[in-house]
Amino acid sequence: MSTSERYEKLFAEAGLEGLKMTEVKNNHQTKQNKIAKLLDSQSATRFRQFFLKLHVYQQAQIITELDFQQRQRLYRYLTAHEVADAFNELEDKAIGAKYFAEMIPKYAAKVISAMYTDNVVDILANSRQEDLGRYFHFLPDQKAAEIREMLHYQDKTAGAIMATEFVAILSNQTVKSAMHVLKIQAKQAETIYYVYVVDQREQLIGIVTLRDLLTASDNALISEIMSPQVISTRVDTDQEEVAQTIRDYNFLALPVVDFDNKLIGIITVDDVIDVIDEESAEDYAGLAGVDIDENPDNPVMAAIKRLPWLITLLFLGMSTASLISHYEDLVSEASILAVFISSITGTAGNAGTQSLAVAVRRLADKDADHRGLLKIIFSELLTGLLIGLITGTTIMVIVGIWKQNFSLGLVIGLAMMCAIIVANLAGALIPMLMNRLGVDPAVASGPFISTLSDLTSVLIYFNIAQIFLRFILKQ
Amino acid sequence: MSTSERYEKLFAEAGLEGLKMTEVKNNHQTKQNKIAKLLDSQSATRFRQFFLKLHVYQQAQIITELDFQQRQRLYRYLTAHEVADAFNELEDKAIGAKYFAEMIPKYAAKVISAMYTDNVVDILANSRQEDLGRYFHFLPDQKAAEIREMLHYQDKTAGAIMATEFVAILSNQTVKSAMHVLKIQAKQAETIYYVYVVDQREQLIGIVTLRDLLTASDNALISEIMSPQVISTRVDTDQEEVAQTIRDYNFLALPVVDFDNKLIGIITVDDVIDVIDEESAEDYAGLAGVDIDENPDNPVMAAIKRLPWLITLLFLGMSTASLISHYEDLVSEASILAVFISSITGTAGNAGTQSLAVAVRRLADKDADHRGLLKIIFSELLTGLLIGLITGTTIMVIVGIWKQNFSLGLVIGLAMMCAIIVANLAGALIPMLMNRLGVDPAVASGPFISTLSDLTSVLIYFNIAQIFLRFILKQ
Repeated sequence: MSTSERYEKLFAEAGLEGLKMTEVKNNHQTKQNKIAKLLDSQSATRFRQFFLKLHVYQQAQIITELDFQQRQRLYRYLTAHEVADAFNELEDKAIGAKYFAEMIPKYAAKVISAMYTDNVVDILANSRQEDLGRYFHFLPDQKAAEIREMLHYQDKTAGAIMATEFVAILSNQTVKSAMHVLKIQAKQAETIYYVYVVDQREQLIGIVTLRDLLTASDNALISEIMSPQVISTRVDTDQEEVAQTIRDYNFLALPVVDFDNKLIGIITVDDVIDVIDEESAEDYAGLAGVDIDENPDNPVMAAIKRLPWLITLLFLGMSTASLISHYEDLVSEASILAVFISSITGTAGNAGTQSLAVAVRRLADKDADHRGLLKIIFSELLTGLLIGLITGTTIMVIVGIWKQNFSLGLVIGLAMMCAIIVANLAGALIPMLMNRLGVDPAVASGPFISTLSDLTSVLIYFNIAQIFLRFILKQ
Repeated sequence: MSTSERYEKLFAEAGLEGLKMTEVKNNHQTKQNKIAKLLDSQSATRFRQFFLKLHVYQQAQIITELDFQQRQRLYRYLTAHEVADAFNELEDKAIGAKYFAEMIPKYAAKVISAMYTDNVVDILANSRQEDLGRYFHFLPDQKAAEIREMLHYQDKTAGAIMATEFVAILSNQTVKSAMHVLKIQAKQAETIYYVYVVDQREQLIGIVTLRDLLTASDNALISEIMSPQVISTRVDTDQEEVAQTIRDYNFLALPVVDFDNKLIGIITVDDVIDVIDEESAEDYAGLAGVDIDENPDNPVMAAIKRLPWLITLLFLGMSTASLISHYEDLVSEASILAVFISSITGTAGNAGTQSLAVAVRRLADKDADHRGLLKIIFSELLTGLLIGLITGTTIMVIVGIWKQNFSLGLVIGLAMMCAIIVANLAGALIPMLMNRLGVDPAVASGPFISTLSDLTSVLIYFNIAQIFLRFILKQ
């Protein structure tokens, strides 16, 4: 019995088989219904009792499932702080902006103040300018300035995803006084597990983990126990690089410094998970030439989003058609040639897509230098040669036997081999070229490569066929 | 001036433009050289001084760049605990297994004992059976049993990625005594920021964060401050689901319980990041029909890994060829038809790939029920209809004008529309079917869909062409 079978048996014996996701779901539905009912019957106290016991993530989920009337009551029954805790967990930022807009601005400002800056900025980036003005009117000046500043940071940089709620101490403090600071700031800070050490000019000079603080003696100086080799990121660093650093070092948070090494924020690991997922979804979508986050409920919008690529590729495909058209006499002389067009273009396209996927990932993985790039190209060339040789030989034999025409088999096999080599090279070279030009190589989609390789494959195919035409027809 | 320009200017003024990644790299090279030199000159003390100051992730990186001789010295100069700290960060698990094999077994056992169970199990899963026996011989019985147990957990489940080093306390302890336990366990536990509350039977009944402990009064009881609504995962839960939970709730760790709700481990957020990346890389690779983690240094291995898909698809493509062959008379009568084969198959293949990518992601996103599936199919059908209508009309006009043959244009346009609708439906249906059959839908790659859609497209094309043949030739 495998481990999983063993467990299934044990769970079944314990009568637990139905637990997992379905139970969580039903559970959620029950909670959701109860909350809605409590709001409808205006039972403020019982609503608060029940709602505040839930995890903030569940609170956020439930809020999105309420109707307008119910949400208005919820705003009345909860303090701005309590709403802020739930709003910190809202996943759909545009919905958050909608909720702010339906609050009275003063209340919205209170919620905004109580939220973590990184989360609230993500939401406010979706708000209309005039709404922002209304909220800012009621915000404390410093908070307003902070949010305004962060709204300006370049999208997808460290600055755009950092939070400004961190704990900083001085190096000449004792462990005891540091712990005191921590206890006071514990409620607001996004993480209290890393404490950053700064000098008088607010420059980052060290880091102490809460673990270090706990195990150190009360009277030790921070300067004695801190780790001075603190790894930080600059405010303009790309979010992908930030994610990689946090991942490599298994950090819970990474400090963000400005150009003067002044500590201005932290990026926590939970923000980075979203970045990693976002970036890989982009790569994935790029490979298929489609926006995978398109709205499933609206086929018209989906079509509008997918069409630009398809029409562009259709025009690229027309150049293949016009190339074939150029060889129409050849085709009418030997119509057998038409039979294998799709085999050759298809196989080369598939090989090119594989090569592209590998190259895009490899380019994203490391900052490849000149030698690294040459290596990728050389490797794809060799791989293409091998693959071309094997698939070419395979189809040569198949065609030779099937059509009893080994000259034709040779032409098809040779053409397929050359087409694959070219497609593999293109699959590796095109993303590199785009990288060079500063375009995200993930845009070089599979459909693009296969459409492009259709063109080169047909060109190769008909040229080889023309050379061997006599032999093909003779048999 | 944009924010990024403003920053560039500021950085330039501060003379800092070269800092970022290149500096980290050069820095690493310098450190690496220095370590190698210290090992070569057998300066144990200075080596220890320098090496132990580095972050454990850097230590791990440097170890992988040493030669055999240098590593042997490193094992001699460092304690097993110090080596364990670095080994916890090793990314390539197979290399870790190699290193264990080159140590004397007793030393290896010490390192194994000192590592976190989840990390060491990942490495030992790559070790040979006889090596394992040798290490186990020197391991404390309990540790050996723990590792053996975890080596048996199904790959890609919670059990396989959990660590067994967590902090558990009883609910009738005071905050003060809990803090005392924490301080003692701080050195070994993988995280001390979450403390789990268990009853006498080791069943999980609550959770307290270190933040809660810090802000509570010393004499408070754990039962008063703990949160009893603790979210946990079962040992046999799929790692993808675990990752989703940690991500949704922004947890730093998730407790793992067995079928009896007994707490047996924790999964920390850093393990989950690797899972998320691994799973999305799999989706991405699936879309291109290639293993993107193939070894770039070995084109032969790369070719061997890519060929099975290509050859399979080549055979599928041959059925398209034999279909066209069936219509060879039609082609020799109207060779113009051959010109547009690749346009139609290409565009339908591209549309099908888009539809596939969206469907695969949507299937992975939520546990879609019956209605959800029908919705996806219906939505793809409508999207396909719209896309088909627009691209079909476009090519009809182009061909009509280009070839001065509007009957031909109509045939091509109609064929393209139908081919796209079928491809879109296939793109949505095939991953669902695979899901039903228990196969990972991500295997239904773009190349597969486009090769399959070649077949249906050609069938549609020639059938429509045959019907309108008279009109095409008339013009």
